Amino acid sequence: MYKLNFKTDGALIPAIVQDHKTGEVLMLAYMNQEAWEATVTTGNATYFSRSRQKLWVKGETSGHLQRVKEIRIDCDDDTVLLKIEQIGDAACHTGHRSCFHKKLENGSITIVGKPVFDPEEVYKT
Amino acid sequence: MYKLNFKTDGALIPAIVQDHKTGEVLMLAYMNQEAWEATVTTGNATYFSRSRQKLWVKGETSGHLQRVKEIRIDCDDDTVLLKIEQIGDAACHTGHRSCFHKKLENGSITIVGKPVFDPEEVYKT
Repeated sequence: MYKLNFKTDGALIPAIVQDHKTGEVLMLAYMNQEAWEATVTTGNATYFSRSRQKLWVKGETSGHLQRVKEIRIDCDDDTVLLKIEQIGDAACHTGHRSCFHKKLENGSITIVGKPVFDPEEVYKT
Repeated sequence: MYKLNFKTDGALIPAIVQDHKTGEVLMLAYMNQEAWEATVTTGNATYFSRSRQKLWVKGETSGHLQRVKEIRIDCDDDTVLLKIEQIGDAACHTGHRSCFHKKLENGSITIVGKPVFDPEEVYKT
């Protein structure tokens, strides 16, 4: 297993998630060693959820898995770039394709694009 | 100034840096409040250097500034995506266009692309 530079025990490494075809940046999440190993071995993007403090297979609730097509690592081994296929088309829990749907212009936010799915339908509570 | 969610005093927010034309992800850096304000007001990507623990105008040494073309913010305001024009063509201190020039395949790294510049020439020490 390729060794990332986690720097300290328990440190997390950011993973940038990009659509493997369009290059659109979909989200950013964090990995611990376990998440990194799971991502590489299963081919399903797996993160460490900071809010829930546990391993998080992206799409485990919604079914919207991220299939890893290519893995890039940065010059100093402390950031990962995943090029993925997003099952279900949307990476954001809001239903938008990308988490980066807020565009800042002249101090104001414009929402780019419309939700692909209704979060209340997908995350039935 | 649009308020990012820094969560705690002194916390840093990751900024993903993407070529505004090609969509190539070039690097990831971190911002504190001062770096965020400088980026928005000057239009030159400005970060907080974790190794040097100070404000870092990208390109201040090499002349390879990053001109900000578009700013995106993620759903929960704790990550920034900058779409930029990279002056001098390379964002990485190694001379590569992207810091993400290490491709992981079957456990091994392949270097993608060749350096655009010679770091020893650009960062004269």
